[in-house]
Amino acid sequence: MDLTATTTALASAAADVVRLVPTRLTDPVLGGLLLTAGPEGVSFAANDRERTARVTRDALVHTDGEVLVPAKPLAETLRALDTDHVRLVVEGSRLAIRADGARFALPLLDTALHPGVPAPPPPCGTVAGALLARALSTVAATASRDDTLPVFAGVRLRAEDDALVLRATDRYRMAIAHVPATVADLDVLVPAQLLAEVAKQATGDVTLAVDANRFALSWANTTVTTAVLDGVFLSESSLVLNTMDTWVELDADSLLNAARRVSLYTDARGVLQLEVADHELRLRGTDPQAGEAEESIKATVEGGRTGPAVQSRYLTDALRPFAGKRIRLAIQPGMRATVITSTDPEDVPLKYLMMPLLPPRQ
Amino acid sequence: MDLTATTTALASAAADVVRLVPTRLTDPVLGGLLLTAGPEGVSFAANDRERTARVTRDALVHTDGEVLVPAKPLAETLRALDTDHVRLVVEGSRLAIRADGARFALPLLDTALHPGVPAPPPPCGTVAGALLARALSTVAATASRDDTLPVFAGVRLRAEDDALVLRATDRYRMAIAHVPATVADLDVLVPAQLLAEVAKQATGDVTLAVDANRFALSWANTTVTTAVLDGVFLSESSLVLNTMDTWVELDADSLLNAARRVSLYTDARGVLQLEVADHELRLRGTDPQAGEAEESIKATVEGGRTGPAVQSRYLTDALRPFAGKRIRLAIQPGMRATVITSTDPEDVPLKYLMMPLLPPRQ
Repeated sequence: MDLTATTTALASAAADVVRLVPTRLTDPVLGGLLLTAGPEGVSFAANDRERTARVTRDALVHTDGEVLVPAKPLAETLRALDTDHVRLVVEGSRLAIRADGARFALPLLDTALHPGVPAPPPPCGTVAGALLARALSTVAATASRDDTLPVFAGVRLRAEDDALVLRATDRYRMAIAHVPATVADLDVLVPAQLLAEVAKQATGDVTLAVDANRFALSWANTTVTTAVLDGVFLSESSLVLNTMDTWVELDADSLLNAARRVSLYTDARGVLQLEVADHELRLRGTDPQAGEAEESIKATVEGGRTGPAVQSRYLTDALRPFAGKRIRLAIQPGMRATVITSTDPEDVPLKYLMMPLLPPRQ
Repeated sequence: MDLTATTTALASAAADVVRLVPTRLTDPVLGGLLLTAGPEGVSFAANDRERTARVTRDALVHTDGEVLVPAKPLAETLRALDTDHVRLVVEGSRLAIRADGARFALPLLDTALHPGVPAPPPPCGTVAGALLARALSTVAATASRDDTLPVFAGVRLRAEDDALVLRATDRYRMAIAHVPATVADLDVLVPAQLLAEVAKQATGDVTLAVDANRFALSWANTTVTTAVLDGVFLSESSLVLNTMDTWVELDADSLLNAARRVSLYTDARGVLQLEVADHELRLRGTDPQAGEAEESIKATVEGGRTGPAVQSRYLTDALRPFAGKRIRLAIQPGMRATVITSTDPEDVPLKYLMMPLLPPRQ
């Protein structure tokens, strides 16, 4: 293999693949990057047996070839170079990265031991990358980070009417986004951590693809596939969502800022008490060490005066995607979910469900 | 106590004191902020028995008084407020922080248990804050972070001729800065961690003050004192610094960038081998996993061809203060220090000594 390309193109390709398929230190071969140079340019690919990613870039290929090298030093060297162009060339048992006055030589790993990167499953629809990214950045963050219970560490993607519906829950809260899309016959549970990275990278149109065990997303010069998760997803249809008796409309930012301040005065559980008054929503926090706090936010109130106690971090997480918007809290009495939506029509309608906590013990 | 002031003034005062005297969680009283309101405004002060800090601010004082409150919630609440003005008022056993629509109430701690903040020692000279800050940001970073050996966790400040000379070493390297100043009779060892924070805050002229056990710095509306450290400081006069046989002049930035790249290819010890050639300095790194790297930087070379092996992190640390400058490496044979200085005359002359390592084992 022998090729020349712009440094930034190769650096971004290596970085993207490493982020989509984070290296496993235990196995150097599965932690390697597979570089393939041919008439169409160069591709960087990885496969850790659960996920695969392939990113292609233009390159001036002098000699075709395929090599496997350690991912991290390749990505870090390309990122650190400040020359415009870089040459990758096999020299004996090394892949040399050559730039002005510098030579970096990576050991070649055995490509025969690498599983390769199989073709993705057949496509089932497309969705606009920008809309998908906006929805994913909220929904994927709502999934649990604890992947010992895969069903709570995943995002469910389901084709419903003219939308791709994304759902994630960690049991205490649930985010549901409707992304306009033309997708046929899709209902999969996909690791949230991967989708959070996809949200950062996806541009243009994103093609979705699925078969019995795998789910794939492709955009621009990138394709990523993952094994789908198994498990029965807790849907919002299993929750009581029709006993609302209190509706509160207010600015998301005012509530977010107040919640941040008052949450400095909550105990280890982080309990914020919401109190609904005539023209305001009141937040109260109390902590044996720090003292007490109380702050009021102007609001339009309808119905009753039900005020739940909520976890401060869950409230601030729930408000973040509504930044700059006016929101509506629909509150139910008892230990039932509060539903947060925007009052403006949105291009990616988002619904956030938040379970209440027991109020602070006196 | 009852006063009104601009929120940013009080927030910066609380934040500055907390950074100069970081809270000790073990004792709530020593972790408290002492607020004193009087005709001159309000002062925020702390004393953890090793350090004290006092910061004053203008305020409209309705009722004089002195209270002790937990430092962290006060600082964080003031920082989080987005109103222009804030009122601090004692209400029963609480200090209330009042702003538009909000009330935060901190418990009052017992001022009688607090040691107070004694007056600083008598002044011994002044130094320009900007020059002191520039010198400290390098010298304080060279001290050891391990404070079990106080002598290596301190910066020695010594009056010499028309300069304040700052020295710090962690045994592997030493930084020496000459700051022009009018200081009489000073030779103290001061915790580097505190001086690093002073470097971030000091403005205008800084007054130095010293007595048998304490050292103080004052600027604008801030005074900080600390217990001095004890121990015999390793001075550069105890090192051999007159057997130089090789001098290399080159751009600090080119060397820094090359060192960052080549250090991706070093083993756990981080050994970079420097090789001096006719018109260049070559860096070499080798690692059993990552492979090998070699990069050349154009240089003017005089004398011999002595090339030491150095620790990559120590080299990059040493180069950072010389960013944008041309530097001169004076190299000695054997296991003796390399001396780095700028080739341009500087307002704060800095000398950096770096001990070599044994070369990489083959």
